[in-house]
Amino acid sequence: MMKIIAQIISFFVFIAGLSTSRAQIQNNFHSENKYPKKEDRMNNYFSARMAILKESLGLSEEQKAPFSQIYSDYEESQMFVIREYKEKFGRKDLSQEETRERIYRGFDVSQKLLNNKRTYADRFLKVLTPKQLEKMFEMEKRMGKKIMRKK
Amino acid sequence: MMKIIAQIISFFVFIAGLSTSRAQIQNNFHSENKYPKKEDRMNNYFSARMAILKESLGLSEEQKAPFSQIYSDYEESQMFVIREYKEKFGRKDLSQEETRERIYRGFDVSQKLLNNKRTYADRFLKVLTPKQLEKMFEMEKRMGKKIMRKK
Repeated sequence: MMKIIAQIISFFVFIAGLSTSRAQIQNNFHSENKYPKKEDRMNNYFSARMAILKESLGLSEEQKAPFSQIYSDYEESQMFVIREYKEKFGRKDLSQEETRERIYRGFDVSQKLLNNKRTYADRFLKVLTPKQLEKMFEMEKRMGKKIMRKK
Repeated sequence: MMKIIAQIISFFVFIAGLSTSRAQIQNNFHSENKYPKKEDRMNNYFSARMAILKESLGLSEEQKAPFSQIYSDYEESQMFVIREYKEKFGRKDLSQEETRERIYRGFDVSQKLLNNKRTYADRFLKVLTPKQLEKMFEMEKRMGKKIMRKK
C-alpha cells in the first residue's frame, strides 16, 4: 500500500512539474498570442518531454545531440500512427458497429506501434545504454500517452 | 488543465475505492490468517476487479455468468504470459546485457499479450456489446496493470 501511495505522490509531483513547464511555455506565448494553436501546444509538450527525458536519463554531452535526433524521429513516427487512427475514430458518438471497428483498428495501431518501437530500440541502443533505454520507455509510458490523450 | 486535474482526482477516488476493497478483503481474512498468502491476495484482487467490472459495465443478468467465465480465462491467459516473464526478469540487479535482453523479451511479451487480447475480443463480443468491451479494455488498462505491477 505504501508503494501505491508513493507512486501516486510521485505521479502528482510529476504532473505538477509538467504543469509548471506548460505554464512557463504559455507565459512565453502570452505577449504574442494569448491562445497558442494546437500544433504549437504539441511542439511545446514535445520540447518539455524531451527536456525531462534528457535530465532524467543523465545523458552525457556526447549523447545529447544524437539522442535528440533519434527521439524526434521516433516520436514523429509514433504520432503519425496515432494521429491517423484518432482522425478516423476520435469521435464520441460512434455506433456499436463503428465501436467494434474501432476496437479492431486499435489492435492494428498497437501492432504498428510495437513494431516501430522494436525497430527504434535498435537505433536508440547505438546511443543509449540498455538501462537508459529501459528507463526512457518506462517514463514514456507513464507520461507521454497520458498527455497525448488530452489533445 | 482542468481535464488533467479532474482525471487525477478520479484516479485518486478510484485507488481509494480499490484500497477500501482490499481493506475489506483483508479484514475478512483477519480472523483466520493475519497474513494472507500471495496467491490468496491475487485471488482477492481478481475478485475485486471482476466485481468492479460487472458493476461498471452494467451487465444484464444474462450476461453476468458467461462474462465471468470468459474474463477468468482471459485474465489467466494474460497472467500466464506476464508471470513467465517476471520470473525471469523481475530482479532489480540486472547487468546492462541482461537489461538489453529484458527489453527485447518485453517486446515479445507485448506481442503475445496483443495476440491474445485480439483472440479474446472475438469471444467477448459474443457476450458483450462493442461499447461494453471497449469500456472493459479501457478500465483494465487503467487499473489491472497498475495493481499487477505491485505484486
